[in-house]
Amino acid sequence: MQTDLGESAVVLLSGGMDSAVVFAMAQERGLRCHALSVAYGQRHTSELVAAAGLAVSMQAASYKVVNVDLRHIGGSALTADIDVPDHGGTGIPVTYVPARNTIMLSVALGWAEVLGAAELYCGVNAVDYSGYPDCRPAFIEAFERLANLATKAGVEGQTMRVNAPLMAMSKADIVREACGHCDACRLRAEGFQNAGVADPTRYA
Amino acid sequence: MQTDLGESAVVLLSGGMDSAVVFAMAQERGLRCHALSVAYGQRHTSELVAAAGLAVSMQAASYKVVNVDLRHIGGSALTADIDVPDHGGTGIPVTYVPARNTIMLSVALGWAEVLGAAELYCGVNAVDYSGYPDCRPAFIEAFERLANLATKAGVEGQTMRVNAPLMAMSKADIVREACGHCDACRLRAEGFQNAGVADPTRYA
Repeated sequence: MQTDLGESAVVLLSGGMDSAVVFAMAQERGLRCHALSVAYGQRHTSELVAAAGLAVSMQAASYKVVNVDLRHIGGSALTADIDVPDHGGTGIPVTYVPARNTIMLSVALGWAEVLGAAELYCGVNAVDYSGYPDCRPAFIEAFERLANLATKAGVEGQTMRVNAPLMAMSKADIVREACGHCDACRLRAEGFQNAGVADPTRYA
Repeated sequence: MQTDLGESAVVLLSGGMDSAVVFAMAQERGLRCHALSVAYGQRHTSELVAAAGLAVSMQAASYKVVNVDLRHIGGSALTADIDVPDHGGTGIPVTYVPARNTIMLSVALGWAEVLGAAELYCGVNAVDYSGYPDCRPAFIEAFERLANLATKAGVEGQTMRVNAPLMAMSKADIVREACGHCDACRLRAEGFQNAGVADPTRYA
């Protein structure tokens, strides 16, 4: 078991842009980053394939997929046979997966404890997903408090930190943070260069 | 989707005595009780068989097993190839499963939200398991606080309650609470009676 508490992080990696940006941000802070994807029965398994690819290209210290099959629970358009509307509605969207962020952070917490990592990172964002209860700063604060009560680290006087660095950023901010800077973009650009083909990508 | 919020409960059922007693206590409070087992890769799968049997004999409103394979995470004698010592030691025991209660309660929370249940019940007990950080009253309180921030119910002004009625009971107290009163005992006693065989069990 590693004992570099405070220098390692577990980063939730979904395969989308947001969590990839978070991973890059955690790496830039000098943390040894382990990537975790939770296979929760999402209809788009291509996300998991993308996450695995990102974990490799971004040189995660290690990558793990844990299965938590939320299809047994249902209640969301992402895991059950519920239509996703083309336009937004009022209230909490049908794409909300009950307790998803709580469950994913819980698994991340368990793994962090085994690794001896004191930092959790996730792509939770309150700006573009304001209808989701588990995407609010108060939720992240409450999970951090729980994490320090639930773990050996907390009992032994160390501090677990739950980071959601995109919380207050707009999607445009996130694109600007990401585009052209992360390893995925760098490798993509290098690929075009090495192939001698003009890169059609317009980086921000 | 049911809407009887406050009248339904999700009870974590491990297959052992403690959670069976908790299930009976929740039923006695007049709640419609749904039983949930989390298959986390425990070495003793016989626990899950017992849980399924209990859910049937205790007439759970429904029973669900959700797979969360913590063997991928390791770090515990219950899920990894670590020897369990014959005698207790100091500090947190090797049988501690990192973040297990956090993960199990998170899955229960997700299902409760889908069911429209506002009550979670678990067999967490601080007396006989004092070395486990996630078996303390402060942990349960922190999870309840999180539950109310993480869910639609919380956003909509309802209250999720996380109950750990065995928290302060000794094992002897739990045996006295259980023995001869729960459905399992009642059915067992009836079995002996119906078979015309003397019941060798000594109920408390």
